[in-house]
Parts: sequence; C-alpha cells; structure tokens
Amino acid sequence: MPGLIARKRDGGALTEAEIRAVIAGAVARTIPEYQISALLMAIVWRGLDTRELVAWTEAMIASGDRMRLGAIRGRKVDKHSTGGVGDKVSICLAPLVAACGVTVPMMAGRGLGHTGGTLDKLEAIPGFRTALPPALFARVLARAGFVLAGQSARLVPADRLLYALRDATATVESIPLIASSILSKKVAEGTDALVMDVKVGRGAFLPSRAHARELARTLVALGGRLGLEVRALLTAMDEPLGLEIGNANELAEAIAVLRGEGPADVRALTLRLGAEMLLLGGAARTRAEATARLERAIDSGEGLERLSLCVRLHGGDTRVIEDPSRLPRAPRSREVRATKAGFVRIIDAGLLGRAATLLGAGRLRKEDRVDPRVGLTLAVKQGARVARGDLLCTIHYADPMRLAASLTSIADAFVVGPTAPPTTPLVLETVS
Amino acid sequence: MPGLIARKRDGGALTEAEIRAVIAGAVARTIPEYQISALLMAIVWRGLDTRELVAWTEAMIASGDRMRLGAIRGRKVDKHSTGGVGDKVSICLAPLVAACGVTVPMMAGRGLGHTGGTLDKLEAIPGFRTALPPALFARVLARAGFVLAGQSARLVPADRLLYALRDATATVESIPLIASSILSKKVAEGTDALVMDVKVGRGAFLPSRAHARELARTLVALGGRLGLEVRALLTAMDEPLGLEIGNANELAEAIAVLRGEGPADVRALTLRLGAEMLLLGGAARTRAEATARLERAIDSGEGLERLSLCVRLHGGDTRVIEDPSRLPRAPRSREVRATKAGFVRIIDAGLLGRAATLLGAGRLRKEDRVDPRVGLTLAVKQGARVARGDLLCTIHYADPMRLAASLTSIADAFVVGPTAPPTTPLVLETVS
Repeated sequence: MPGLIARKRDGGALTEAEIRAVIAGAVARTIPEYQISALLMAIVWRGLDTRELVAWTEAMIASGDRMRLGAIRGRKVDKHSTGGVGDKVSICLAPLVAACGVTVPMMAGRGLGHTGGTLDKLEAIPGFRTALPPALFARVLARAGFVLAGQSARLVPADRLLYALRDATATVESIPLIASSILSKKVAEGTDALVMDVKVGRGAFLPSRAHARELARTLVALGGRLGLEVRALLTAMDEPLGLEIGNANELAEAIAVLRGEGPADVRALTLRLGAEMLLLGGAARTRAEATARLERAIDSGEGLERLSLCVRLHGGDTRVIEDPSRLPRAPRSREVRATKAGFVRIIDAGLLGRAATLLGAGRLRKEDRVDPRVGLTLAVKQGARVARGDLLCTIHYADPMRLAASLTSIADAFVVGPTAPPTTPLVLETVS
Repeated sequence: MPGLIARKRDGGALTEAEIRAVIAGAVARTIPEYQISALLMAIVWRGLDTRELVAWTEAMIASGDRMRLGAIRGRKVDKHSTGGVGDKVSICLAPLVAACGVTVPMMAGRGLGHTGGTLDKLEAIPGFRTALPPALFARVLARAGFVLAGQSARLVPADRLLYALRDATATVESIPLIASSILSKKVAEGTDALVMDVKVGRGAFLPSRAHARELARTLVALGGRLGLEVRALLTAMDEPLGLEIGNANELAEAIAVLRGEGPADVRALTLRLGAEMLLLGGAARTRAEATARLERAIDSGEGLERLSLCVRLHGGDTRVIEDPSRLPRAPRSREVRATKAGFVRIIDAGLLGRAATLLGAGRLRKEDRVDPRVGLTLAVKQGARVARGDLLCTIHYADPMRLAASLTSIADAFVVGPTAPPTTPLVLETVS
C-alpha cells in the first residue's frame, strides 16, 4: 500500500489489479482505514484517469449484489440529482415517466448537510416503507412502472464504506470519486440509462459551473464505458426549487404538480427531465412529443394514480395523496417579512437549506432523525417586487430553540435591492 | 476535523490552536488515524507556512519531556544527517568535536530503507547500550563530552506516532513534516545549535538538489524560530561515503579515521562538519583554526580516547576500539569484478544501500533485526580506472539466499565506461 499511495501522490496511475485489491481490501477491512484515507486524499489531489476510474467503479460494483431486472420488459431509465434545496422533482417525475411507458427503477437517497433527500420526503407518508427487499423492489417496479426505494445494503457496500470515510476525512470533493459513487449504484440497480441533474449555484453541492460541467462530462464518459447511457443537465440551484423546503410540505408540492398545479419551476424541470427520460427510454422521438405526453399524463390524472399505487405498494396511507392536508404539520409558525421595499435579488438556497436542517428537516449527522413537519414556505421567488412588510416566507417549526438557531440564516438568505436581478434559465446546458 | 482537513486540502492555513489540538488528539488517540493520515496527505500536497510549521513543531515538542542539560557547561552542538549509504561520520565526528571542547548531545537513529543508522553500527560493539535513561545520558555527556544514544521514548512521542503513520501512508516526503520531525527531537534533546548534513544524490532520501536545498532552508528558518541555531550543508551522496557499507565494518572505518587512517572522503566530511560545529560552539573563530584543532585531536589520539571512554560508559567492550579485528565478521564473502575495462563512472549508493539491506545490514521493516557482520567493502571509488577482472567490491554475507537476492542490485550499481566521470565536490553548498 505505501508504494501504491506514493505513486498516486506523485501523479502516477494505479493498475486495474491494484484498484481491485484496494477496494476489496477496504471492504474486507484487511487494509487499514488510515491507508485508504491517505489514498483518497491523494486521489482528491491527483485525480483518476479514465482507465483508473472505470476500474475503480467496476470494483465498487463487484463489492456487492446487482439487481436482476431482466424479467421487466422495456428500457429502464433513472434520474439522479447531485442534491439541491426544495428539489422534490423525483416524486412527481417518476410516476409521470412510468405513466408514459418507461420503467423507472429509482433508488433514492436521504438528506445530508443542507440538501434534502427523497426518502425523507416519502417517509412523511404514514406507513410508507422505503427499505424494500429485492423481490418486492422488482414487484413494485413491474406493477407501478416505477419504484422509489432506498438502496439495499447489499448493493455496492464499498460505496457506503468509502463514503463514510470520505465524509470524515474531507475527501468527498473529488469529481472521479463522486462519479464512481453515483454510477456504481446506478449500474448495480439495473437501469439502462440515466438522466443526471447536476445542480449549479449557491444551493448546490458543487456551486461552480466549471466543476459541475466537469462532473457532468465525467459521468457521461464513465457511463459510456460501463454500458450505461448518461445524459446530464446542468440546472440552476441558486434559489430553492419551488416554494416549499422541508419534507411533508415538499411532498405536498410534488403532489400539486401531478394535479397540474404547483410552482412553474418545479413543473418545468419535471417536464424537461421527464422528456429526456422518455427520449432515452425510446418512448418519444422528439422533445416536443415527449413533453406533450408528460403533460397529458398530468392532465389525465394518470401520474397521480401511479403515485397513489406506488404508495399503496410501499405500505403507505394513500389518503394523503388525495388530501395532502392530512400530512403531518408543524405546530407553530413564524413569518419573515421584508424590511425594505425593492426587488428580491437573491434567495440563497444554501442558507435556506442549512436553516431547514437546523429546524430539523435535514441531518447534520447521518444518525440524526428528520422531523417531517418542519420547514419553510416561500411567499416569493427571485425577481419579485416587494413592499416593506411584505411576507417573504413562513417558518414551520416545533422547537423554539431550533427556530432561534435558524433565524439568522433565513434573514441573510433574502437580499432585497433597488433593481430587478437578471433572470437566469433553469436549464443551463446539456452534456451527452 | 473534516472542516480542518478540508481547509488544508483547499490550500488554507490551520490556526495554532487547531494544530495543538491535532497533535494532542493524535497522541491521546482521540482523533482517529484515518483523519490524521488524510490531513498528512493534504499537508504533503499543500505544505505548511512558517507560522503553521512553528506551531506544529512546538506542539510535537510539547507532547513529551525535554532533556535538562543546563547543568552541563558550554554550548551544546549536535550534527544530524538526512541519511546516506556508508555514512559513519557521527562515530568519528562526535568524539573529535568533544575533544576540542564542544559538548555533543547526539541522539542518533536506526537504519531504515536503504540508509544505515548510527545506533545499529554502535551495537556491533559487544555490550554497547544505546538506550540510556536521562540521568545516564547527562552523566555520559558530562564525562565524555559527547553521547551517542537512542532517543528516549519520552521525548517527542508525537514524532514516533506520526512517523509510523507517515511511513504506512506515503506521507513521509513532505519538507515541513521532515523538518518538524528532525528539529522537534533536536530541541527536546537540549542542543543549542545543529549542523545539518543534507544529502543529495542517488543514495539520498531526497535525491534532487532543489528539494535538498528547500529542506536545508526550511530547517535553518524553523530552527531560528525555535531558538536553535542551524547551519546546513548540502553534501554529495551519489556514491557511498568511504569504502565500507554495513555495521561492524563501518564502525571499523570510523575508528580508522580517528587513527588518522581511513578513506579521504570520510575524513574530509568529518573535518568539514566538525569545523562547522566548533564554529557554532564558539571553540574556534575561523574554519581553518577549527580544522587544525580537529586534525590535532586525530593526531594526538584524543578523539580515539574519547570514543573508547564513551564505549566504556555505554557498557561496551572497549577492546574492539583498540583492535577492530575483534568485531563480528561475516562467515562468507563473494567478490564482484569488472566485466570490462574503463573508468568507474557510477557507484550507485541507492542500489548498494538496498543491496546491503537485503543482505541483512539494514531494515525493510522497523521490526527487522540487523546482522552486524554483513555488508559490502568497495575496492574502488568513482573515477577509478579498472581493467577487466579487477575487483570492484567484496560482499560479506551469511545467508546464500540473501546473497542471491542482492547480486543484481550490486552488479547494476557499478557502471564502467570509456571516459572518466566529472569529479564532483563533497560539499555542494552551505545554507545558514
């Protein structure tokens, strides 16, 4: 190991056999964690070339089981996001795409740091089970055409182990390590194609557009080498997506989109990502055709029916889908109002994401429990004109101490100025 | 820790309080080794600025005891080398400098990798104890004017811990970490000034002159901030120093220098380093005066007497000093001869150091035991003219398997060509 670490430290490459031995040794715990973490930092420094990255990702996949979805007909297409604030798109996207005839085997994640997680949002539904045994995962997928489940512990155990070590040693921020973590799980879950939503901006994991583009290109190239077609969209994450940040309230907003309601940006991003999925799945030939099909699945209520079916198959209470007011609600609220008149120039998604985490909607540590009731409801979006005293957002809270801890971030997140901010597109660029 | 590691990873600086907490946490084992090793790799990458390096070194010193040598009169001056092949200079240097009136509290090291260690060479003397309790260390120093002992376990425990981790994680090669490791021990041992012999070339730990110069400058600057006057010499380590490589045979060569015999390069380097020590110790005003005093200490036999006294105080058999033929000898030998006529252009110190280690004269791992009898005796130095069949070196060995393992390195170490190589000076430059 020391010689191998030294080679990477000095900018050299590892052989495929060495990479297999490192991943296998890490999982078997025959290589001490202090050597793995030193190697990870050397990789953050020096990177991995394409050949090394393919070998690294394949070794991670080989560390566990792979889902066998061969019995399910048709192309399977998944969507994955690098994580944002207010991003509830998966919950309305997956049933719509399924309603259009493309199978969506979506393994979703939990919130960590300032970003939310789809599983936490779904667990706001009483009884909803996110941990499905492989046979049930395949059965839900066959019945509903999509599944929204947690990752099985037997899939890519190397990723859980490496991710925990990277989190503790500041070695998360490496494009190849991020790409291998994402795609190893997508290959193992059995999808044929993947639409990547790479967030850019203040609320994104990689705020800079250059880094986001590099990740997008790495994902597309690596996917190609692994037999997984990847299309990546760089999308704006400067302000939160939609108006709701939290869990129960974000779920309700996703349901609203399936009813043909909900904020314009959530609907627009859902349609755009869904159109890419239909194209990758062979269910449409043009983006316009794909968008039209998705809009019909909203208008006909078929998307909402699919979500309801999925919730039932996961053991959840489907009454909340028909009537989201049945979802758990925070006992208290506090309004935040504009202290001067002008245009809302910035609504900082990073600060609001952190505030929501402090309120209890997310996790500072992996062991933390999420409170589905708490969160934020925006009254405005960037560019809105406000008078002094106008409502900017409502804080839904349970614990006054947590409210107090979050207030500064929330106040700082809103910047009101004399002129309107430039409008930025939601989708910044496409990489494929 | 993850935030602190991330700051260093991104090129930022650590505060003095953070550095103290890291070193204390490493020693107390409250910070896991995987976080320490990731931080060490980030330091290899990004370095430490002067303020950080001073804090790091002071925190290492504070991890253990400091020798109290205040009762011993006069300035105390030590010499330290970054490690070479055939470098037995400490053994003849310390008694000569002591004979000239400068106290030398030398804590020496063991061989590791391809370089030898003074303690291993001294242990070729039957009965010689290198582990001295602090009171005995001070007593030997007061009586003999010098001491050549191992480092007490209570001095700089942080260095032992960090060095073991660095060795296992390829994080040894960092100028600031090397400098803090060397000077923390020198400050703790109580010396007032230090002459650093920074080796450059094929047999050196840092082969490149640029790196060696950077280390020399770092040591001088750091010493200044710690109240330790440091003068550094960059010296050639392309071919081995002297003719002997091993332990008992190197000890015999050092004794020969004290008798006014021995190879010219060992004598020259001893006189040059010794002159710097006398100047730093205030025992001479010019280098010429210092050199003359050292030569008198050789000619009068006073240096040899001092070594004999030291060996006695360390519990060793002083008869080997009078008659080095009493030292342990390898049972077998093999001659290596020139396969063509010409000039010896290269005698690769790195390859011969590794060969000596394979023979059993050094350690591949810290736990390995050293065989004092085995090693190499060169018959020529670089620049010598040889005929086909002339003796190049004699291998002293005990185990035919180890001999076989070392033969290729030894054959490769000698390069004979049609023209004489350029002569290079022994001392390349001085940094102070």
